[in-house]
Amino acid sequence: MTEMLPSYVNGEWWTPDGEAAGATEVRDASTGELVTRVSTAGLDLGAALEYARTVGQASLGELTFHQRAVLLKQMALALSERKAELYELSARTGATKQDSWVDIDGGIGVLFTYSSKGRREMPNSKVYVDGAVENLSKDGSFLGRHIYTRLPGVAVQINAFNFPVWGSLEKFAPAFLAGVPTLVKPATPTGYLAEAFVRILVESGLLPAGSLQLVSGSVPELFDHLRLGDLVAFTGSASTAEKLRAHASVQTGGVRFTSETDSINASVLGTDAVPSTPEFDAYVKQLVAEMTTKAGQKCTAIRRAIVPGASVEAVIAAVRARIAERVVVGDPRAEGVTMGPLASLAQRDEVLRQVGRLEAGGGELVIGSTDAPTVTLQGGATGEASDGAFVAPMLLRFADAASPALHEVEAFGPVSSIIGYDSLAEAAALVARGGGSLVTSVATHDPEVAVALASGIAAYNGRVLFLDRDDARSSTGHGSPLPTLVHGGPGRAGGGEELGGIRAVLHHMQRTAVQGSPEMLTALTGVWHAGSEARPGGVHPFRKSLAELRIGDQVVSGSRTVTLDDIETFAAFTGDTFYAHMDEDAASANPFFPGRVAHGYLLVSWAAGLFVDAAPGPVLANSGLENLRFVTPVSPGDSIRVELTAKQITPRETDEYGEVRWDAVLRNQDDELVASYDVLTLVAKELAPA
Amino acid sequence: MTEMLPSYVNGEWWTPDGEAAGATEVRDASTGELVTRVSTAGLDLGAALEYARTVGQASLGELTFHQRAVLLKQMALALSERKAELYELSARTGATKQDSWVDIDGGIGVLFTYSSKGRREMPNSKVYVDGAVENLSKDGSFLGRHIYTRLPGVAVQINAFNFPVWGSLEKFAPAFLAGVPTLVKPATPTGYLAEAFVRILVESGLLPAGSLQLVSGSVPELFDHLRLGDLVAFTGSASTAEKLRAHASVQTGGVRFTSETDSINASVLGTDAVPSTPEFDAYVKQLVAEMTTKAGQKCTAIRRAIVPGASVEAVIAAVRARIAERVVVGDPRAEGVTMGPLASLAQRDEVLRQVGRLEAGGGELVIGSTDAPTVTLQGGATGEASDGAFVAPMLLRFADAASPALHEVEAFGPVSSIIGYDSLAEAAALVARGGGSLVTSVATHDPEVAVALASGIAAYNGRVLFLDRDDARSSTGHGSPLPTLVHGGPGRAGGGEELGGIRAVLHHMQRTAVQGSPEMLTALTGVWHAGSEARPGGVHPFRKSLAELRIGDQVVSGSRTVTLDDIETFAAFTGDTFYAHMDEDAASANPFFPGRVAHGYLLVSWAAGLFVDAAPGPVLANSGLENLRFVTPVSPGDSIRVELTAKQITPRETDEYGEVRWDAVLRNQDDELVASYDVLTLVAKELAPA
Repeated sequence: MTEMLPSYVNGEWWTPDGEAAGATEVRDASTGELVTRVSTAGLDLGAALEYARTVGQASLGELTFHQRAVLLKQMALALSERKAELYELSARTGATKQDSWVDIDGGIGVLFTYSSKGRREMPNSKVYVDGAVENLSKDGSFLGRHIYTRLPGVAVQINAFNFPVWGSLEKFAPAFLAGVPTLVKPATPTGYLAEAFVRILVESGLLPAGSLQLVSGSVPELFDHLRLGDLVAFTGSASTAEKLRAHASVQTGGVRFTSETDSINASVLGTDAVPSTPEFDAYVKQLVAEMTTKAGQKCTAIRRAIVPGASVEAVIAAVRARIAERVVVGDPRAEGVTMGPLASLAQRDEVLRQVGRLEAGGGELVIGSTDAPTVTLQGGATGEASDGAFVAPMLLRFADAASPALHEVEAFGPVSSIIGYDSLAEAAALVARGGGSLVTSVATHDPEVAVALASGIAAYNGRVLFLDRDDARSSTGHGSPLPTLVHGGPGRAGGGEELGGIRAVLHHMQRTAVQGSPEMLTALTGVWHAGSEARPGGVHPFRKSLAELRIGDQVVSGSRTVTLDDIETFAAFTGDTFYAHMDEDAASANPFFPGRVAHGYLLVSWAAGLFVDAAPGPVLANSGLENLRFVTPVSPGDSIRVELTAKQITPRETDEYGEVRWDAVLRNQDDELVASYDVLTLVAKELAPA
Repeated sequence: MTEMLPSYVNGEWWTPDGEAAGATEVRDASTGELVTRVSTAGLDLGAALEYARTVGQASLGELTFHQRAVLLKQMALALSERKAELYELSARTGATKQDSWVDIDGGIGVLFTYSSKGRREMPNSKVYVDGAVENLSKDGSFLGRHIYTRLPGVAVQINAFNFPVWGSLEKFAPAFLAGVPTLVKPATPTGYLAEAFVRILVESGLLPAGSLQLVSGSVPELFDHLRLGDLVAFTGSASTAEKLRAHASVQTGGVRFTSETDSINASVLGTDAVPSTPEFDAYVKQLVAEMTTKAGQKCTAIRRAIVPGASVEAVIAAVRARIAERVVVGDPRAEGVTMGPLASLAQRDEVLRQVGRLEAGGGELVIGSTDAPTVTLQGGATGEASDGAFVAPMLLRFADAASPALHEVEAFGPVSSIIGYDSLAEAAALVARGGGSLVTSVATHDPEVAVALASGIAAYNGRVLFLDRDDARSSTGHGSPLPTLVHGGPGRAGGGEELGGIRAVLHHMQRTAVQGSPEMLTALTGVWHAGSEARPGGVHPFRKSLAELRIGDQVVSGSRTVTLDDIETFAAFTGDTFYAHMDEDAASANPFFPGRVAHGYLLVSWAAGLFVDAAPGPVLANSGLENLRFVTPVSPGDSIRVELTAKQITPRETDEYGEVRWDAVLRNQDDELVASYDVLTLVAKELAPA
C-alpha cells in the first residue's frame, strides 16, 4: 500500500496523480516502512465545500433529529462489523490494542451515545426549543421563546494525528445530528486510518449525500473558502490554532471557530491522600496510565503532577516502581508490549526537544532518559530501533514550582513533571498557572479538600475529575473525554467546547429568540402554545392514533365539586392525613391556606378522571408527569375542571408508538388557576385493527 | 457643569486634572453648549482592574445568587427614586422623553428582571448546576455533571453612546448576578449620563466593594491589562470590534470577548400582508417608529425594508404620510418634538457621509433629504439650528436588490432603505445578505409564510419578531431588546449573545464537567446525589425547619400492598376508569402491562401517605412535583414503598420560608424501580414558637 491516499469529495473518491510533486510520505511508526503517500494537488476544495452546503444541507435537511440519530446507530454497527480492519491499520500508527480500543471503539461509542441521546433528549423534528416560554405582554398575545436551527454551512474538522477515528467521529456525530454536513481533514501521519473508516461508512450506503467528505492532505487555502454559516473544529497545537483563528473568515467573516488544544493539564494529590491511602495508590496508577497510554500523545494527558511537598519522593518512587513493573515499550504488534512508539520520527524529535526545554527550565529527569530505549520488536527480539519513533517514559522533578517552563512547555509524549505544594491555595494557584486546561484531576477522599480545590480551579478547567476509593475502580480516568461530558477548556486549552451530549449538537446550530403571537410560536416550534388555536369537542383525542392526532386537539372537562367528605375519603384511602387537609385550625394558621384544603394528589387524580376516555384505544400508558405546580388551593365547596391539550407529538422511529405531551390546566369555579402540568403518555402510531 | 467628568475607581471618585492636555469636550446635542470635559490622563487603569479582581471578587464571593439578586432590586429602586435627575441629563444627549424612557426605565427594568429571574431560576448558592446527572459507571459509583462557577476576573464593558444607562445596566445585571465585578467604560459623548447613574448607585450604599467601577474617557491600553478570567462586552461598530478582537489578550490570552455591533437589520413584509391588511399597517407603523426612535441611533433599527415588489410604492407612500403626520424634529426639551438630534455634530456628519455612500451605491432618496432640516427649538421657535446635530428621516429606494451598499452600509441615524422581492426564497436570501443581524422582523398573518421565512433566516439572526393583527398592539417592537430574550447575532452583528435571562449570567461563568463519586458530587454542587450518604431514621425530616434540615435527611417508608379492590376503589373515587386499570383482557393486550395495573396517581398518592408526617410543623405546603416517570407497572398483589430524601434546600431571602426539593423513589417488593420524581415543598425557616 504505497499508493496515493484518496480523498472522498463531491460524492466520489478522488485520488491525486501519483506523480504529483510534493506528496508526503507516511511511514509505519515502529518500522519506518512506507505506508502511503498523501497529496491534495489538483483537488478542488471550494467545490467540495459548496457540495456540502448544497447537496449535504439538502439531504440532511430532509431528516428529523431522530432519523439522523437512527442513522448514527446504524453507522456505529457498520463500523463495529469491520473494526478488525481498523485495528490492523491502527497498529501501524504505533497504537497498542488498548490505544486502538480508545480510538476505534471509543469513536464508535460516541456514535452510539449520540444516537441514544438524540432520541431521548431531542424532539423528532428539525427545530430545537431552548428554555421556557417568556410572556411578553399582559394579555398573553405576544410571547418569546428561543429556538435552535442548524447552521446553513459546513462543519470543517481539522484533526490531530493521535486519534484519527475517535477524533473525527466525536465531531461528526453532533454535526450530523444537528443536520450540518461535515468535511474532515485528518492529520497526514495517520490519515490512512481516517480514510479507512470513511470508506467503511461510504460502503455502508448509510451516508446521506454530501453529509461526510474527507480531504486527505494539507489544505493551506481552506479558510479563504469559508463564510458565515460554516464552522471549524480544530484539534491540535495552540500555536496552529492561533494562526487559524486570526484569519479574516473567523475574525470578521462570522465563521464559528472552536479549538481544542493540548494543554498543560494537572493532577493534584490531596493533602489527605498520604502514602498507603487508597487515593495515593489510585493517583500513582492513574499518573502512569496517563503517561504511557498512546505513548502520552493525548491532549488530556497529565503534564503536571502537583503533590504535597512531603509526598514528592514517595510519588516518584511509586511511579518508578509501577513503570518498571508494567511498562514494556515496543512495536505494538509484538507480544507483551504496553507502550508503542510515537506517531513519527519527527514527532519523536519534537518531544525530545521539548524535554530539553523542560530541563533547561529547571526540570531534573528522575525517571527515564532521552536516550533511545531498548524496545521489544515484532517476533520478540529486543534492541534499539532507529527507524521506530520510540522514547522512554520520563518524569521530571522541578524544585521551583514557579518555573515558567513547567507550566508552559508541553512535551507531547510520555512525559510528565512533578512539583510539591505547601497549601491547597498554592495547589489551586499552580493549576491556574497552566493558563486554562482541558482537565485537572484531584485525588482526595475529603469533601472539604475537594470543595476548596474546586472553587479555585473549576474556572480554569473544562473538566475536573475527583478520584477516591469510591470511584477508583469505576473511574474512566483523567485522560478520557466522554461523549456525555464537555471536552474543551478555557485559555490555552482553546476556549472551546466539544461533546457534552446535546450541548455539542447545539454548537452546530444558531440560537434565535423568536417573538410573536401564540399561533406563530406554535407554527414555528411545532409545540402548542397556550393561546393558540385549540380544538375542543369532536372526537376525544384519546381515540386518535399518532397518525390522526394534531397538536391543539383538546378535551375540556365538566366540573366536579370537592366536599369535605371527599377530602376525608382520600386521606383515609391514601394515608395522607397531612394537617392542611385534616385540621381546620392548623390549616388556617398556615400562611397559604384559608382552612382545610384538598390534597394536590386528589386534584390531579380527579383531573385524570375528568379528562380520560377509558375505553381501549391508541393511548397505551401514562408514562409520567412534569412541571406540576399547585397555584390556588381548593377548599371544600370549590369545584375544579380541566383542559387537556395535545402539546407535542414525538413518534418513535423504531417503535409502533410515540410520546404525546399534553398540557393540563386545572381551574376552579372562579376561573382561577389551580394547577398546571404536563401529562406524558405513550400513544400508538396506528389504530389497532378491529 | 463644565468641570472634568470624574471616574469611580478603587472605591473612590477620581477627577483628572482640569488642566490636562487632550481632554475631550462634550456638548449638548441640540444647542452645542459645553456640558463637560473628559480625560483619563493620570488614571491607573491596571490598579482599577486589579481592585476588581481582588476586592470586587472577594465582596461578591461572599454573596449567594439570591443575595445578589435582592441587591439588584434595591439598586433598581434607588435609581427609580432619582430618575428625574437622569431624565434631565438625558435630554442633553438629544433624547426625547420616549427615548429616555427606553434608556433609563428600560435599564432599571433590566435590574428588576434579573432580580426576579435570579431568585426564581437559580439556586440560593454560588454554584449553578447545568443539566442532568450522567451515570458513568454500571454501579453508580462514578457520576458526571456540569457546573458553572464564576469567572475569576473582571467584566469590562465598552459601551456605545446611544443608551448610556440601559447599555450599561443590561451588562451589569448579569455580571453582578454571576458574582463578577464590572468596570464600565462608557462612550465619551454621553458618558456624563453613565456617571450620573453610577453616582446614584454609589450613594445608595448598595454596591459591594469593587463590584462596579466607572472609567470616564478613553482607555487605549485597556487590553494590555486583561488576562484569562476577564471578559469584555463590547457594543459599537463592527470595525472597532474587529480591532479589539484581534488583540493578543483575546486571541491567545483567553479573555472572553463578546461584541454586539450595529447590523443591517431587515424587516420583511409578508406576501399576504398586502395594503389594507392589519399587517401592512402594523409594518408601516413599526418602520416609522424604528426610523425615528432615538433618531435611528439603535443597533437594532430597521435598515432594510424588504417588501413584495408590488407593494414598494404603497409602503413608501404610507411611510411618507405617517412621517408627515407624526414626526416633529427638534430639541427634545421643546413641546411637541418627537425626534431629537443625533448625539453630536460628528455623528451627524458621519450619517450624512453614509447616506452619500448609499446613494452612490444605487439608493434614491424617496423620503427626506440630506439638507439641514427645519426644527423646533426650545421655546417653540422653528428654524435651522447649525449647532444642533439634526437630520431629517430618510428612506432610500433601491431598484437593484443585489446592490452591495444596501446590505453593507449603515447610516446610524434615521435612515432606512427599501427594496422589492419576488418570492419568499428571495426575501430570505436578501435578509441573509446582511451577513448576520441582531434582529429581523416579519409582518405576516400566515403561519406558512412565517415558517418558510424562519427556516431561511433564523440562522442569520439573533432575534426574529413576527408581527400580525394578534400581537400588533402588544408587541414590544422590532428594535427593543428584552432582558428575557437573547440580544446579539451572528456575523456582522458581532457573534455574541447578551441578555436572554440566565443565559447571560452563565456567560460570566465557566462551565466545567465534574466527575466523581456521588459523595463528591453532592459536596461540589450542594445538591444530594443518589448514592451519597443519606440519613434515614431519627427525627422525621418533616419535623425539621430549614435551620435544621440537611440534604441527605431521609424517610424510608414501610410497604403497602395494592389489591384489586384498591384499584377499583380509586377508579370509582376519581372517575379514572382507564382500561389498563379496569379491563383485564384489554390491559393484557397492551404492550406495557401484564394485566390490570394500579393507577400511577394511586401510587404517588399512596407514596405521600407513606412518607408524610401529618402533624402541624415546619412543612407548609406541597407546591409541586417534577420529572415523574413511571417505570415498572404495579399489579394487584404487588407492594410499594418509598424513599424520600432532602435533595436541595433553597431558603428565600425575603420570606420566612423556602423551597425544599425531595428525591422520591418508589420500589416494589422485588426492589424494582416503580417510579421516581421530585417533590417540591415550602418549609419554614424556623420552627414556630410553641
